[in-house]
Amino acid sequence: MANGKLWWEREDLCYRAGRLQLGGRELESFVAEPGTPAFVYHAARVRDNLLRLRAVLTSQGVQHDAFYAVKANRYAPLVRYLKSLGQCGIDACSPGELRHALEMGFGETEISYTGTSVSETDLDCLQSHPGVHVNCDSLSTIRRLGKRCPGRRIGMRVNPELGVGYNDRMRYAGAKPTKFGIYRDRFEEALDLARGVGLRVETLHFHVGSGYVGDAVEVLNPVLERIGVLLDAHPEIRTVNIGGGLGLRLVETDSAVEPVRWAAIVARHLGRRGLRVQLEPGDYLVKDAGVLLVRVNTVEEKGGMRFVGVDAGLNIVNHAAYYQTPIIAAPLVRAAGSRLERVTIAGNINEAIDLLAEDVELPPIAEGDLLAILNVGGYGSAMSSNHCMRGEFREHLLLDDA
Amino acid sequence: MANGKLWWEREDLCYRAGRLQLGGRELESFVAEPGTPAFVYHAARVRDNLLRLRAVLTSQGVQHDAFYAVKANRYAPLVRYLKSLGQCGIDACSPGELRHALEMGFGETEISYTGTSVSETDLDCLQSHPGVHVNCDSLSTIRRLGKRCPGRRIGMRVNPELGVGYNDRMRYAGAKPTKFGIYRDRFEEALDLARGVGLRVETLHFHVGSGYVGDAVEVLNPVLERIGVLLDAHPEIRTVNIGGGLGLRLVETDSAVEPVRWAAIVARHLGRRGLRVQLEPGDYLVKDAGVLLVRVNTVEEKGGMRFVGVDAGLNIVNHAAYYQTPIIAAPLVRAAGSRLERVTIAGNINEAIDLLAEDVELPPIAEGDLLAILNVGGYGSAMSSNHCMRGEFREHLLLDDA
Repeated sequence: MANGKLWWEREDLCYRAGRLQLGGRELESFVAEPGTPAFVYHAARVRDNLLRLRAVLTSQGVQHDAFYAVKANRYAPLVRYLKSLGQCGIDACSPGELRHALEMGFGETEISYTGTSVSETDLDCLQSHPGVHVNCDSLSTIRRLGKRCPGRRIGMRVNPELGVGYNDRMRYAGAKPTKFGIYRDRFEEALDLARGVGLRVETLHFHVGSGYVGDAVEVLNPVLERIGVLLDAHPEIRTVNIGGGLGLRLVETDSAVEPVRWAAIVARHLGRRGLRVQLEPGDYLVKDAGVLLVRVNTVEEKGGMRFVGVDAGLNIVNHAAYYQTPIIAAPLVRAAGSRLERVTIAGNINEAIDLLAEDVELPPIAEGDLLAILNVGGYGSAMSSNHCMRGEFREHLLLDDA
Repeated sequence: MANGKLWWEREDLCYRAGRLQLGGRELESFVAEPGTPAFVYHAARVRDNLLRLRAVLTSQGVQHDAFYAVKANRYAPLVRYLKSLGQCGIDACSPGELRHALEMGFGETEISYTGTSVSETDLDCLQSHPGVHVNCDSLSTIRRLGKRCPGRRIGMRVNPELGVGYNDRMRYAGAKPTKFGIYRDRFEEALDLARGVGLRVETLHFHVGSGYVGDAVEVLNPVLERIGVLLDAHPEIRTVNIGGGLGLRLVETDSAVEPVRWAAIVARHLGRRGLRVQLEPGDYLVKDAGVLLVRVNTVEEKGGMRFVGVDAGLNIVNHAAYYQTPIIAAPLVRAAGSRLERVTIAGNINEAIDLLAEDVELPPIAEGDLLAILNVGGYGSAMSSNHCMRGEFREHLLLDDA
């Protein structure tokens, strides 16, 4: 806590006079009774995250288009805000997301669709939206889409056969076979198949994984070398979609994330070819722009551990249960120089795995206190369930910096 | 596959002439277009599971009451069916579940409430339903409930400090401190507190974990010995709630589950004291009574693995992603003597962890085929989410054996 600041504090998310603020607003102002659990998203932070990625690519001379991976957070006011910015399209992965994007004001040509285990029902939807760009992740999809939509221009998702992620659960490719994309050994077969059914492959798509930080970005070098071999053989392919996945530091000891380094790798391999680059940031845009406000209802020593019980569980924030990624809990009110205690934050779901954060350091917490769970702007509300019938929560989009 | 039967086949769930039947009905009859994904629950199997548990306790002379842990599956027709049987009450863990039980026809006195991280909002609900039995799992709850409802009779959830489960993620107590219940070192303090705030402790409650099979049931011996020490010291406590948790064989190599052995242990420790026993079966009642019907849309070799893509993902059946428990996939139509292939069954969610079953043996599967995912009658629909906006499914309760 150098100069009294916590490592994760930043200009728009910080304590002022001991009270946690997001975008210049005291978070406590979002907690009218019974106002918890409540997600608060800071629109300007989403914008800044998007513009940061675009700026580093532009500075490296990379012509590009960004598609927001809406599965990270589909909250309507947030998606409409992104539309109003005019800086990105939508990456959709299901008919539901495609229709949602249209409803939020995006046009067909602003939507890139990359699905997996694509059903006939999914194809019905894609067929009825001819302007949507479709990336096919299997020969099966190519065969069936071609039958329905001869002449359509498509992308082909390839499996990069190398993967990274914040941890193994977030790695999308690597030594172990994954369901995503077409492997090198079937690439030419897939292209032949596409030609045979009258589809025109104009885009290559790949995704290495989610949440990678620090040196992990270097995986893009060998991956893009392999992509380069495919591009050399097929000069008619003029666009490469590099997926998403750039991560955030989730704990203080995580390595830094360097967008400039990422952009330089992309430029080195793709920019110099004069290709158009597409990217699909999802979590990167929204993760650190959103917090979940919860109220502490129970503080109790059990078996030698101090448990802090709150009014939301793994059905609202599943980051620990699903992805085994750490979360940060921050009291809304924090006195200067507080001693720290080690606590485990427990949700209100009757399941052994319903722990939001295990054995973390916090200032003394009392029943009735409010906590902000940080870095849950993505894959929070989007994945929420009504398990134990505890599925209720509120959402707020904070539009203007006060 | 001795005598041509698969190990999990039983009278009401089996192949007849190569077609999978549940309760005498061909499962294919539940798949009208676009009828997948669809859960089908066999009411008579739920009943049989309940009566089996009750019968073994009765045969051992154990006076008891069963409370269905509705968090396993809250599908209204199923809960109403259980009410119609008149063989159990409801174990609720949230205000939502409590109100749902009342709506399904259960009376307050048929409801046992055991929550964790109990909020003031939760207590508002409990206060307004004075007939509901409440088990308190922390001193905090005792203190706050006592203030609101002096004179109320309660149960106290104790942490057995020994746990079992199908795996570590389903263990609710053990060497590592858990959030559930009051530990021995604070038991007398909790009783004093209850007396001090005017609550009358009449029930002890504990739960060791979920899904245990085979010899794991023996954990109940040392647990009930410890409970016995507490009971010796407090003869006013006349009821013990032993929770739920008895499991099922999920793979062929799992040890058998022996309800008689379970009941004998309960009888040895509690029955001989003339105590009333309460139990909270959830998954045990519904798990093997429910299947999820899915349609295969993609069959493809990727990186040396044969992937079978289906039209449901981890947001509908999260058993693998959340609990890391295995599932069984059974083709609705199965030719006799088929050779077997090793496949991985992948869902339609764009996440690396969206694999329903990894590297399992199945007869050859073709695109368009229907599969039943077995043992998902519990913790399936109840935990489903709309992640990737792929949250739609149907549910059917099969009431009469054809």
